[in-house]
Amino acid sequence: MTSQGLEGVVAATTRLSEVDGERGELIISGFPVGELAAHATFEETTLLLWNGDLPTQSQLDSFRSELAAQRGLAKPTMSLVRECARAAVDPMDALRMAVDTISLESNEASAIVARVPTIVAAFWRLSRKLEPLEPKRDLGHAANFLYMLEAKVPDAERVRALETYLNTVVDHGLNASTFTCRVITSTGSDLVSAIVGAIGALKGPLHGGAPGPALQMVFDIADASRAEEFLRKKIEAGERLMGFGHRVYKVRDPRADVLAAAAERLFTRAGDMRLYTLARSVEATAIRLLEEYKPGRRLQTNVEFYTALLLHGLGFEVPLFTPVFAMSRVSGWIAHAFEQRAANRLIRPQSEYNGPRDRKWTPVANRADKVSAVAIG
Amino acid sequence: MTSQGLEGVVAATTRLSEVDGERGELIISGFPVGELAAHATFEETTLLLWNGDLPTQSQLDSFRSELAAQRGLAKPTMSLVRECARAAVDPMDALRMAVDTISLESNEASAIVARVPTIVAAFWRLSRKLEPLEPKRDLGHAANFLYMLEAKVPDAERVRALETYLNTVVDHGLNASTFTCRVITSTGSDLVSAIVGAIGALKGPLHGGAPGPALQMVFDIADASRAEEFLRKKIEAGERLMGFGHRVYKVRDPRADVLAAAAERLFTRAGDMRLYTLARSVEATAIRLLEEYKPGRRLQTNVEFYTALLLHGLGFEVPLFTPVFAMSRVSGWIAHAFEQRAANRLIRPQSEYNGPRDRKWTPVANRADKVSAVAIG
Repeated sequence: MTSQGLEGVVAATTRLSEVDGERGELIISGFPVGELAAHATFEETTLLLWNGDLPTQSQLDSFRSELAAQRGLAKPTMSLVRECARAAVDPMDALRMAVDTISLESNEASAIVARVPTIVAAFWRLSRKLEPLEPKRDLGHAANFLYMLEAKVPDAERVRALETYLNTVVDHGLNASTFTCRVITSTGSDLVSAIVGAIGALKGPLHGGAPGPALQMVFDIADASRAEEFLRKKIEAGERLMGFGHRVYKVRDPRADVLAAAAERLFTRAGDMRLYTLARSVEATAIRLLEEYKPGRRLQTNVEFYTALLLHGLGFEVPLFTPVFAMSRVSGWIAHAFEQRAANRLIRPQSEYNGPRDRKWTPVANRADKVSAVAIG
Repeated sequence: MTSQGLEGVVAATTRLSEVDGERGELIISGFPVGELAAHATFEETTLLLWNGDLPTQSQLDSFRSELAAQRGLAKPTMSLVRECARAAVDPMDALRMAVDTISLESNEASAIVARVPTIVAAFWRLSRKLEPLEPKRDLGHAANFLYMLEAKVPDAERVRALETYLNTVVDHGLNASTFTCRVITSTGSDLVSAIVGAIGALKGPLHGGAPGPALQMVFDIADASRAEEFLRKKIEAGERLMGFGHRVYKVRDPRADVLAAAAERLFTRAGDMRLYTLARSVEATAIRLLEEYKPGRRLQTNVEFYTALLLHGLGFEVPLFTPVFAMSRVSGWIAHAFEQRAANRLIRPQSEYNGPRDRKWTPVANRADKVSAVAIG
């Protein structure tokens, strides 16, 4: 009767994305993820989700200007980001706190999407004792983020790789953060409240995932010839292989394919294929061994494995991985908030009580200290 | 198949509270709400929920000191509260932003519970151009809140009325904010993330409710002899009567009884029963007319009606109502977070896709501007 994790419970109909775990397919607003991700700019993907159709040139131009105009942070937001860097909080806590303060000035979808990269980059630089940079209005969303991190205008290949990543993870059915966003929205609350709740959910390791450890494993293996021995030892010790297995996908996560192709292109351009080749070899060995040790479990490469490789290829350090994930998913969250509002019903499930009944009030002076009572008795 | 609002879906088992909507009963950790609310201090109720039993004297003393020691706000939190007052944001936005910054220093349950009243009182005073007051360590949780609002130590009768209110609304099954808190916690995220999400959900008018309008209606009626005409007009115009009807309760909300008794006591002590008598009369007329116009719908007095009366009797203005609700419910949210963690399973429902399929990528230059296309065609 009770479904603690709501597995298999359909809690919403959506035109935003479809996750087919058995067939390994992901549709983003009508497009198979592989058809969309490598082509679209992130601005186009965002408008596709929000409006249901790809934008025309004039719609796209006006949205790009709107985002570019709203990238700057208000003083209280920037002060708080500085405090966060000083206190060395988790980057997702910093993002959550700073996004929360957008309420001081705005509650617009475009203001939220525009400011997330500015917050992530500012916190990153301040954490490294570097001053944050002003956003550049003439750059697109992804290019400006790379610029704000690195203080130089990025080349087109790196921008393309980042946009492909952002498009790939922008929406994924009713995952826990998206569901959080819809529950909050269903009360009639505002967009910042819903997004802040979603960031808090994405922070959790069972959701935001562990692309860091997946990458670390590849580094630890270091050489393809060591992969089998290393992985056997890990599996036999009962350890989980990070980057493999997913609650929904029973075949290869379709996002892994898209990200692997983007990583291959990025590493080819950079002229050093060693890490990419090693990762492919670790992947092949891991899947073979998982099938040997856990036959029928169908543990396949998930999105984390190639996320780690691609983001590392972009020069991002591990603590940036989940904030950059949030920078993408925020557009999906907002699309779900719009969809929830358009046909709203308060989301309020039931609970089943398994506690005591008919207790009688006892004033504190008459309450037996149970430990002492046992000792005396 | 799809349950947009998750009605009737059991999403958790809990020992914290049971809402029996048919019988009009609410159990808080084993106590019928009427047995607990008028007796306990809020510190006792909080420990009851967190530990499953009422505290002994020594447990209670040590929790009181722990809370009292943690009431002060860090500088960045207080600066943000000042910004919120300057920007005149919604009091729930101010509370959400300020609670969020607790992450800069702590992630402890007691730190969160201790600071909520300080934030609410500071924002309230700053919004009225008054300086916030330092909390008083020798006062209990409820008494200190009244002190921080009013700059004088409150009398025992008002403290009792506030504690009765706080105890009455502290927990209520899987309402939307509590559910939000459990979804966020289920990802393995932290307590501040979960509470901030819950505050965002409580802000929504479909959840945090409308005690303001319920009270306004009583004021508008002004005289018991006008109640019937006023209410008939409202019902015949198709307007909702605020303070009546509840998604779960089909009989009188048991919390309304407890709060009505507390209000009666408070107004009796204050020596002016006019508003209380008027409210009872409006209630009786409203129920009679609702049964006449909507027979079988069983629309009964809900918690909002007497919440409004009691909080008004305490001297609170309407914008304080939902923040004071949050000041109570935060202990329930935290209890649910603890319970979720103790037997965790990621909460991740499914969605059903109703959007397009098999779309093909079209570069922006080739996208027809649909409006123009129609105009030309």
